[in-house]
Amino acid sequence: MIVTKRKSYKKATERLFESLGDRKVILKGDQKFMASFDSSKLSFEYDALIRARADKDVGIVLKLANEYKVPVTARGAGTSLTGSASPVIGGWVLDFSRMNRITIKKEKAMAVVQPGAVVGVIQEAAEAKGLFYPPDPSSLKYCTIGGNIACNAGGMRCAKYGVTRDFVLALEGYLPNGEKVSWGGEYKKFATGYNIRDLWIGSEGTLGVVTKAVLRLLPKPESRWTCVAAFETERKALSSVKALLGEGATPSILEYLDENSVYCAEDIAGVRLFKEVGGKPLLLIEFDGSRDELKSAKRIVAKWAKQWALAFKDARTEKAAENLWEVRRKCSGAMFAMGDAKINEDIVVPLESQLKFSDFVRRLQKRWNLPMPTFGHAADGNFHVNIMFHREDKEEMHRAEGAVSDLMKKVVALGGTISGEHGIGLAKSPFMRVARNEAEIAAMRAIKKALDPNGILNPGKLFDVFEVWSRKPVKVALPWDKKPILRKD
Amino acid sequence: MIVTKRKSYKKATERLFESLGDRKVILKGDQKFMASFDSSKLSFEYDALIRARADKDVGIVLKLANEYKVPVTARGAGTSLTGSASPVIGGWVLDFSRMNRITIKKEKAMAVVQPGAVVGVIQEAAEAKGLFYPPDPSSLKYCTIGGNIACNAGGMRCAKYGVTRDFVLALEGYLPNGEKVSWGGEYKKFATGYNIRDLWIGSEGTLGVVTKAVLRLLPKPESRWTCVAAFETERKALSSVKALLGEGATPSILEYLDENSVYCAEDIAGVRLFKEVGGKPLLLIEFDGSRDELKSAKRIVAKWAKQWALAFKDARTEKAAENLWEVRRKCSGAMFAMGDAKINEDIVVPLESQLKFSDFVRRLQKRWNLPMPTFGHAADGNFHVNIMFHREDKEEMHRAEGAVSDLMKKVVALGGTISGEHGIGLAKSPFMRVARNEAEIAAMRAIKKALDPNGILNPGKLFDVFEVWSRKPVKVALPWDKKPILRKD
Repeated sequence: MIVTKRKSYKKATERLFESLGDRKVILKGDQKFMASFDSSKLSFEYDALIRARADKDVGIVLKLANEYKVPVTARGAGTSLTGSASPVIGGWVLDFSRMNRITIKKEKAMAVVQPGAVVGVIQEAAEAKGLFYPPDPSSLKYCTIGGNIACNAGGMRCAKYGVTRDFVLALEGYLPNGEKVSWGGEYKKFATGYNIRDLWIGSEGTLGVVTKAVLRLLPKPESRWTCVAAFETERKALSSVKALLGEGATPSILEYLDENSVYCAEDIAGVRLFKEVGGKPLLLIEFDGSRDELKSAKRIVAKWAKQWALAFKDARTEKAAENLWEVRRKCSGAMFAMGDAKINEDIVVPLESQLKFSDFVRRLQKRWNLPMPTFGHAADGNFHVNIMFHREDKEEMHRAEGAVSDLMKKVVALGGTISGEHGIGLAKSPFMRVARNEAEIAAMRAIKKALDPNGILNPGKLFDVFEVWSRKPVKVALPWDKKPILRKD
Repeated sequence: MIVTKRKSYKKATERLFESLGDRKVILKGDQKFMASFDSSKLSFEYDALIRARADKDVGIVLKLANEYKVPVTARGAGTSLTGSASPVIGGWVLDFSRMNRITIKKEKAMAVVQPGAVVGVIQEAAEAKGLFYPPDPSSLKYCTIGGNIACNAGGMRCAKYGVTRDFVLALEGYLPNGEKVSWGGEYKKFATGYNIRDLWIGSEGTLGVVTKAVLRLLPKPESRWTCVAAFETERKALSSVKALLGEGATPSILEYLDENSVYCAEDIAGVRLFKEVGGKPLLLIEFDGSRDELKSAKRIVAKWAKQWALAFKDARTEKAAENLWEVRRKCSGAMFAMGDAKINEDIVVPLESQLKFSDFVRRLQKRWNLPMPTFGHAADGNFHVNIMFHREDKEEMHRAEGAVSDLMKKVVALGGTISGEHGIGLAKSPFMRVARNEAEIAAMRAIKKALDPNGILNPGKLFDVFEVWSRKPVKVALPWDKKPILRKD
């Protein structure tokens, strides 16, 4: 299947401009260009950028879009790694970054937010009232809650707390036909008809447009404790994960770094965690909760580390903890020493398949002769496999392509799935049929057709196969880029 | 709208019998009669009872049902209070009570269960391995997980832990067209296409048939602490809820009993909690967690009780705690002293509307001159309003009907919704349009039509208005009945 060729929507765009004016509708210039791609940096031409400022703007846009069958792609900050926020077949981009209101309701432990609210800012607003919003994608200083809802974003703290979905109590917004709807309210339970709230979450902007979300907040944990352990082998590190969880430990974070990732962080970024045992795979662990809970966690971990780890240390101060997390953050950027391009996958495997998976990644690197530093959320089996290559080297690029395909088939064979927190977008569209059977895809497409008969909302994503390899990314520095931009042109 | 008249499906039923045999297909007798109604006791004629024993039975049933357009109603124990498990327009009843396997996976903290597994048995199996499945509908000794998934069941512990949905990691089963599908697996995260798992949950058996569920389990809490407080007025009791939650307390249970409920439990069932202050509204509270967490909870509660309560006591032993919960359990049965019939609603109101809601229920009782003892889950605003009347008294029945209608409109006006944990089924179908706007219902119906074009799965529920008042319930004692059956005929 090939994505439909881009059309121009001149008449529709004129009417849009008449309705919303030049403050909200931008037809050319840098701002418009910067909204032509997301963090995948695949840029596409389109007709108009719309800066929504009020709910009703969305109704106006969607009614017009339906009348003229104009594709509409909603976006927040554009941190998506999959191309899901890119206007792949043109049309209009509906930008929510100006709709970013946040209201914290302390007694109810809820946040009422607009889709353009930045996730990190929501977290800070909650903390200021003694509350806690756990989901923490690594782009949290930039990404918006609308985007997090669209791809059901995760992060490190999912180990204990779950993903974005687990914190969304209600959504308000517009059906593709421009009708206003709300799924839930400022309450915690409902059993009144189909749960379209959770159908929207993770649907990557293809089934509806969110204009308001009610989020569930937790009491802020009393304290946190961070530690790190190095292991003789990757197999040993991953076996120890199962053992630790089997002891009933509930770490808030449990991050695994394989040897390649540790190499990047230690040798390239110049951080060294254990002087005596450099380059060994690591687990970075955080517990949070009451002092009593931490005491009991420390007891379990001490016994566990003695049995499994080569070296172990904990952070006695907040500063020391911060230094440990710095290693995790450094490794992603340092990887670019191994190639100027990275395919960052976010596959999921069940706990019992983690060893087999790690063996497989070692074989995969040999087979395709490419480095694939792998790290991620070991408690929920959500690993980032980073296939490094040089974009200008066509042969190397083809090897990367082959490796991704092998990887996707393997994780499904291991009982896992192809994406845990980034979503499908364009980048993973060739593998949807690896993860899902025909009946499952037919059911999804039937729902899409039922709710969006004109196919206007974020078309070209999820179901159509996009040839991501045929596209050259734009060379633009984004605020959340972790590598220096190589300006070759 | 009127529910379609029942048809007979002779040819289809013959072929069904040929395919599955007399062990699985029951065409007459007591067993078949007992599956003609659920806990609403509205009985309907139908053609065949199917006792599924394997996944593939479901595929066979649904393929045949589609060919002949036979209605299929899936059921577990039939504890539903709404009529959602009744074959309202005939056809086939697909019984899962023989598919009740439970496998607890300790290291992964998951349970893999068949739909006929009884919820209380799942809880016990989890506890035997040091784990905890929190959802606790009051029918937990009888109800099955399939039914809990169908109506997204809740219970007392939702206050802290959430509802059934929050513990379902994956569902496997059949689309209405008889194709096998699975939504998720034995892992905790996925972002690979539409989330039909959560669309199925709460869809009351109208969008798919579950044959396997993967449930998330928690570590078993170290300890529990139960206490009870009496208040001068209902307003004061409910105001104190907001104050307690505002202090950051996270009770695992926070049950409210209004004056009428306390009267039923105390004067009729013969339990007395506070000798000095009988008949006053109560809050029954449980905290669970580490000893440290309980210590801090006790500190908060002591201060709070001093400020708000008329009388307060805590349970020093498990036996004492059990005695407190006995009051809560007794009040439901004791209510039948106020009428031989009960409309048990399960509305939800936001925290800030609880006072207004309680004032309204007092007015409602006066207006319709009927007792309406109200109790429920105060932490999430999910209250059971029990409208008591005498079924043989036509005029009284009409008053009850009027009261329900007023109640539904009011909870929606207060920003709440008409059902928190029972679902819509037949009983609440007249009020779906009070809770949901036209666009919302149209979206739901479009999804139903997309996934079930022949309308075979549990037709007549949710969207069609059923005249519940025109039906006389059967006089049969069910194992979970809390009142003695009045055999007048």
